[in-house]
Amino acid sequence: MADNCIFCRIIKGEIPSSKVYEDENVVAFKDINPAAPVHVLVVPKQHIESLEALSDENIQAVVPVHKAIRKVAEITGIAEQGYRVIVNCGAGAGQTVMHLHYHVLGGVNMGEKIL
Amino acid sequence: MADNCIFCRIIKGEIPSSKVYEDENVVAFKDINPAAPVHVLVVPKQHIESLEALSDENIQAVVPVHKAIRKVAEITGIAEQGYRVIVNCGAGAGQTVMHLHYHVLGGVNMGEKIL
Repeated sequence: MADNCIFCRIIKGEIPSSKVYEDENVVAFKDINPAAPVHVLVVPKQHIESLEALSDENIQAVVPVHKAIRKVAEITGIAEQGYRVIVNCGAGAGQTVMHLHYHVLGGVNMGEKIL
Repeated sequence: MADNCIFCRIIKGEIPSSKVYEDENVVAFKDINPAAPVHVLVVPKQHIESLEALSDENIQAVVPVHKAIRKVAEITGIAEQGYRVIVNCGAGAGQTVMHLHYHVLGGVNMGEKIL
């Protein structure tokens, strides 16, 4: 846990969030600035700064994250229509909170355009 | 391996690709229709259709994929500037090849806009 990390504080319950799913390893909550009708952030509870901070010691965290992504898609009703998962790594790519998080976006036809 | 899957055929060497990285579990090659100066697809060699096809039996495949993403970022010189990873799940989200693949995009300032 990092004291000055907003996602760690959400995980600890110090800051409210609109939770969609939670288990022992992962929390998922609605993005406060949604870019699509469904926009949920899937976050490992372990404080890992970004994709670049993944190492042999913490990389297993991506497994429960991927299980949670499927659960979030099911809960929010976008599994069948399809959805997009986005991870920004670094400020230059739009990562605004330095705690690894996976955007899950759906509820709109995104076509083939990916950027 | 799926005989009619273009990514399985690339993995088997039956179709040429511009490879960036390869190990026993993963292959990474340039997207033929790049959406950014750096646009590489990171693909598990195991034929998994999509995020929705991940199960307890195959989900460990996402671990070497994430290690490979970091390697691709380093090889292509985008690790420091930052990069975006996108996974489309299902035709409605723009998944055009039904073999799980992670788009790694960089070489351009993507700002905060994510969709």
